[in-house]
Amino acid sequence: MVGGGRGAFIGAVHRHAMALDGQIEVVAGALSSDPDRARASGRDIGLRDDRNHGTWQALLDDELRRPAEERIDFVAIVTPNHAHYDVARAFADAGIHVVCDKPLVHSSAQADELVRIARARDIVFAVTYNYIGYPMVREARDLVRAGAIGAIRKVIVEYHQGWLATAVEAQGNKQAGWRTDPARSGPVGAMGDIGTHAENLLVTVTGLEVQGLCADLASLVPGRVLDDDASLLLRLRGDVRGVLLASQIAAGCENDLRLRVFGSTGTLAWRQEEPNTLVHAPLDGPRRLLTRGSPWLGRVAGASVRLPSGHPEGFLEAFANIYLGIAADIRARHDSRQLGPEEREYATVEDGARGVRFVEATVASARSDRKWTALAEPAAG
Amino acid sequence: MVGGGRGAFIGAVHRHAMALDGQIEVVAGALSSDPDRARASGRDIGLRDDRNHGTWQALLDDELRRPAEERIDFVAIVTPNHAHYDVARAFADAGIHVVCDKPLVHSSAQADELVRIARARDIVFAVTYNYIGYPMVREARDLVRAGAIGAIRKVIVEYHQGWLATAVEAQGNKQAGWRTDPARSGPVGAMGDIGTHAENLLVTVTGLEVQGLCADLASLVPGRVLDDDASLLLRLRGDVRGVLLASQIAAGCENDLRLRVFGSTGTLAWRQEEPNTLVHAPLDGPRRLLTRGSPWLGRVAGASVRLPSGHPEGFLEAFANIYLGIAADIRARHDSRQLGPEEREYATVEDGARGVRFVEATVASARSDRKWTALAEPAAG
Amino acid sequence: MVGGGRGAFIGAVHRHAMALDGQIEVVAGALSSDPDRARASGRDIGLRDDRNHGTWQALLDDELRRPAEERIDFVAIVTPNHAHYDVARAFADAGIHVVCDKPLVHSSAQADELVRIARARDIVFAVTYNYIGYPMVREARDLVRAGAIGAIRKVIVEYHQGWLATAVEAQGNKQAGWRTDPARSGPVGAMGDIGTHAENLLVTVTGLEVQGLCADLASLVPGRVLDDDASLLLRLRGDVRGVLLASQIAAGCENDLRLRVFGSTGTLAWRQEEPNTLVHAPLDGPRRLLTRGSPWLGRVAGASVRLPSGHPEGFLEAFANIYLGIAADIRARHDSRQLGPEEREYATVEDGARGVRFVEATVASARSDRKWTALAEPAAG
Amino acid sequence: MVGGGRGAFIGAVHRHAMALDGQIEVVAGALSSDPDRARASGRDIGLRDDRNHGTWQALLDDELRRPAEERIDFVAIVTPNHAHYDVARAFADAGIHVVCDKPLVHSSAQADELVRIARARDIVFAVTYNYIGYPMVREARDLVRAGAIGAIRKVIVEYHQGWLATAVEAQGNKQAGWRTDPARSGPVGAMGDIGTHAENLLVTVTGLEVQGLCADLASLVPGRVLDDDASLLLRLRGDVRGVLLASQIAAGCENDLRLRVFGSTGTLAWRQEEPNTLVHAPLDGPRRLLTRGSPWLGRVAGASVRLPSGHPEGFLEAFANIYLGIAADIRARHDSRQLGPEEREYATVEDGARGVRFVEATVASARSDRKWTALAEPAAG
Repeated sequence: MVGGGRGAFIGAVHRHAMALDGQIEVVAGALSSDPDRARASGRDIGLRDDRNHGTWQALLDDELRRPAEERIDFVAIVTPNHAHYDVARAFADAGIHVVCDKPLVHSSAQADELVRIARARDIVFAVTYNYIGYPMVREARDLVRAGAIGAIRKVIVEYHQGWLATAVEAQGNKQAGWRTDPARSGPVGAMGDIGTHAENLLVTVTGLEVQGLCADLASLVPGRVLDDDASLLLRLRGDVRGVLLASQIAAGCENDLRLRVFGSTGTLAWRQEEPNTLVHAPLDGPRRLLTRGSPWLGRVAGASVRLPSGHPEGFLEAFANIYLGIAADIRARHDSRQLGPEEREYATVEDGARGVRFVEATVASARSDRKWTALAEPAAG
Repeated sequence: MVGGGRGAFIGAVHRHAMALDGQIEVVAGALSSDPDRARASGRDIGLRDDRNHGTWQALLDDELRRPAEERIDFVAIVTPNHAHYDVARAFADAGIHVVCDKPLVHSSAQADELVRIARARDIVFAVTYNYIGYPMVREARDLVRAGAIGAIRKVIVEYHQGWLATAVEAQGNKQAGWRTDPARSGPVGAMGDIGTHAENLLVTVTGLEVQGLCADLASLVPGRVLDDDASLLLRLRGDVRGVLLASQIAAGCENDLRLRVFGSTGTLAWRQEEPNTLVHAPLDGPRRLLTRGSPWLGRVAGASVRLPSGHPEGFLEAFANIYLGIAADIRARHDSRQLGPEEREYATVEDGARGVRFVEATVASARSDRKWTALAEPAAG
Repeated sequence: MVGGGRGAFIGAVHRHAMALDGQIEVVAGALSSDPDRARASGRDIGLRDDRNHGTWQALLDDELRRPAEERIDFVAIVTPNHAHYDVARAFADAGIHVVCDKPLVHSSAQADELVRIARARDIVFAVTYNYIGYPMVREARDLVRAGAIGAIRKVIVEYHQGWLATAVEAQGNKQAGWRTDPARSGPVGAMGDIGTHAENLLVTVTGLEVQGLCADLASLVPGRVLDDDASLLLRLRGDVRGVLLASQIAAGCENDLRLRVFGSTGTLAWRQEEPNTLVHAPLDGPRRLLTRGSPWLGRVAGASVRLPSGHPEGFLEAFANIYLGIAADIRARHDSRQLGPEEREYATVEDGARGVRFVEATVASARSDRKWTALAEPAAG
Repeated sequence: MVGGGRGAFIGAVHRHAMALDGQIEVVAGALSSDPDRARASGRDIGLRDDRNHGTWQALLDDELRRPAEERIDFVAIVTPNHAHYDVARAFADAGIHVVCDKPLVHSSAQADELVRIARARDIVFAVTYNYIGYPMVREARDLVRAGAIGAIRKVIVEYHQGWLATAVEAQGNKQAGWRTDPARSGPVGAMGDIGTHAENLLVTVTGLEVQGLCADLASLVPGRVLDDDASLLLRLRGDVRGVLLASQIAAGCENDLRLRVFGSTGTLAWRQEEPNTLVHAPLDGPRRLLTRGSPWLGRVAGASVRLPSGHPEGFLEAFANIYLGIAADIRARHDSRQLGPEEREYATVEDGARGVRFVEATVASARSDRKWTALAEPAAG
């Protein structure tokens, strides 16, 4: 992993995502452009000293020296945007598979060069447009391919955030700092940060590329140089009409990415903040709510879920929170401490026992003609 | 880990939850009551042979033989309900921390015995009521404690599922099979499976225990022995009124767990299928939508999130889906295969390059007086 | 009309509802139990002096003296509950059709007597349970009758309001005053005021009567005598299970009446605060959102709408607000006054002209290759 | 009233809206451009013969002949768009107040002429942009004026309908016929029909006029001449950015008019299909749901409601449906017929009596220690 050290948001997200299925392990890294910070960050996440590097060049050199069987399978590049190109080119050129955060690079010349190298070296080169990983986005794409809404006529994609509605970059917010700085973020702000997600979602689901556009970019917060608001009219292949809106000054919006695809026989609508539901409105019947994990979904969406329907995918995080609470308590015992009742963020055996008495009273009441059944007192400790 | 082998739903959920934060690793197990199946399941998840056992007794014996530093920190018991007691008692008695699935056991005599042992051996003994791990459930609990809704007057907790609306247990559904079988599930069906979650959620958030109840249990699907529907009136401590509804025949409901707490100065409402929002209705102002990750949340809820507001926690799973797609492609290369474009479930460098051209056209259009700006053609491969 | 004078909420609602379709006109009344207030209220709504009475007895006497062709078609009784019986009996006995507010009376002896008279005199005797007038409630009832959800297994009806969460009756609130006073409201509070609506909705949609029940009533606001909270377990005909919840202390709830009907092949759910949508969850497919005015609705629901789908029925009230604004301006002109721009609650011809220029610029822009088209200036006044 | 005869949708809406508050009565009309149809339509709505005219010219002549005290207060023009101008000019010129449907006319020359006459004759001239009559739209406007969201930065208004997603005009749909016909609808289709509503809503709430725009119009249904889809970028006064989307080919959308206003300190969002809620997202706290009828609304919104919060304004229509059912039964009795039980679309006295027995059983149960209380049988008829 290159980048993603202390204080970086997206690096931690990548590591959580890698960990989830137990198939991927972070074994080596250069986690910051500052060598000391890089090594400190590497120690935080448990990298061995001989694979914890101060620079990405040292990481690459070291990997190339190692025999193939202990070499990394791929590099994940999660630096600020301006550093993507050099790192990606070097690893790709060395024949190492690359996973690079979006937006890929700042110019199409650079992008075309990376495409060329990836093809020449025949490597996997992924760009982590992550929103297309939602099961219901895949279902939407497959429904479009299967003709469920006929010929596409118009597409509207929106991405609204509100966290840049004030000049937080002037108040020390690190995330805002590099995103609003032309030197590190490139020629665009909101368009690069979130507009590219919107474009990729639109193209992935519809299968239609953008052929022409008419853009209105604005820097609406006083003092800001890069765009924080964008409104675009689009022409997609086949003269299909499109609209793309991306804004980071939309106070009250959190991460409101939405897609609507209007076809000749129906409409699909999806919203990232309620990702488990895809609305399908056929022309000739009521709107249908397609939900993740339902038996009537397509093959790919079906294969993309870890939990049954109705268990929102945050279910796993909530479950993991319980395990974090348990681990904290076990660690405290290792240190001969004991957590107080208000610090224990999980249910104890006493809670379990209480549940058993509750069920026993339920069964007794269900068999009784009397209105109220009292619960038994817990056994004395 | 005891239980949770091939075909078990909840065992895999536990493993995903353990993996998420990189703090917990499954190193030993007896994953089924059938020894062959146990060992095959252990191999599936990568257990070393010497820690992959055919029975839980063998697992326990082996752990006790090992030096403390390589012994497991805790055992996770994820078997069907009827097997909880023996396993939990044996590990607890041996002084090993226990994580046991809910409902704990079938009788309060057994439950009290486990409480006694846990206290005597001074171990961590957790019961995985997982819904209290949601950040907004913790926020609700903390708001109640802080007096945000005054004195609690009435509580309504509901848990509706529809997957047992037909006799799927007669059609070979393994999950339905043991849950509707008194020999394996205990004296209750829906009440044990989901009613106990509802009770625990209610008690956790309100801090009020159930003192009396009036229950109406029903087996509404023909041929079913255990309850699949339950309606209870409750009296909580302090003469607070309560209602608990739990049903598994609610066709169209997926995993619809809801809680409403009515206090003297306001109301709180939460719904598991939209877990990131907590509705707070103060008596003297409009309803407020509290969302996970907001700066105005309390300390515990704030510490329970991995992502900013607006990123529903399923975001991580979607992200992990991208990594699964990348891993699949890298594996294919190892095997000298190549995935076709429709099999590649992630964005490639070509997609990234397309995004760069899109941004370039956006910037050109924003500076142009002409209405339409065409996108550049990709460089030839 | 008997009752419904100055300060009465429901009397005005009845008159708006009568006016809407232009089929019913209020021509006579005794609008209060206080003769002076009655006559003043009658003048407010434009009753002729000879048909504006101080007592309901005078109204009845006068009507009976008149020839049939100028006699009222029916009487609407919108008094507080305790006065229903005497008025209804007298008019029914005189052979005049009766429309009486709910709950009908306070005892089944009185109710049975009214049923007897209505049958003997062969009159129309309606009780204004108004919620069954929603098109989507009628659709739900007709879907149940048509077998769309199979055999009904369980029904949950809830009615939550929050306006009695504090002792507003002690602060001069007239509506709260009589509703919490046993002398005027009868033996029950919330159960009579809103629980009866819930019962009627349940019976109307399911076609199943309540045969037994188990009730928990509470007066949760200190000092209140009648129930302000009710939780009931129900047994409906055919051993169908039911739950009825009615509460007026649910802070933050406005008029939250909901119905869920679980059948052997599907579920129906409706909510009064979003009355235009009926959710139908079939066992074997995704949830369907049935909306008022859709072509795929049944005959009765189709006949119960005045507007196309998507025009929520409040559309008419919004439209009527515009006409009120216009009428206010015309009245001001009659009085040789002129409303200021901020007082004019409707769009003027200048607004219309602005819209025309907007469309003209749109057409010009659509035909132009230039990015921006300016709007023409309005002609000088 | 001019126009609005048999088969016209909007004419009936105007009459319902006029009737609602009992302040406006339709006394004269020329309800169609076809004299026979006009007179038949007038008889349908109960116009007296001497005020039921075959042409609008005859109507105007007749009115001018009448003494002022029996002359109409205003004329409502609800014809197809192309007829607005001549009628409006003639009545305005005669000094009669005018209410004209939108869009006002087809050219700004005509519009300016009407503005000139209205000023010269000092008459009320209203254009029925009806969506600004919603209480929560007025609240939004007043919140903007009061500075609740600071300086406006961006505005998005959308109006999506789906009823023209197929060429229904070729299948005899009268509404679609004139709206897609350049001869009757003017130079635009969707933009005139619904885009003008969107523009007016935007201007009314923000108080900002459109100064420049960039439009993309499309006729997406094969064979259609006028636009059925429009996407516009806007510049509002003060360099505020705007987007206006209007489409009638959005399958599955019913009447989906939405407005979002982003300011420097907060955001307002409103949606016509859930008109009773206005979302206010302040920069420094959670989203607030402002609902019609709440005590914390502003003066104008407060004065624009007829019902308490939680009673969606369709409540009145549902109530009126009950009265229609009662009127149908009374009419049947006049005709010596009797409606069958399934035809009676209201609750009868027997239903009321059942409700009384239900309440009596509730009270008995609440006082009983036994679990179940049976309901009494109804008295024999």
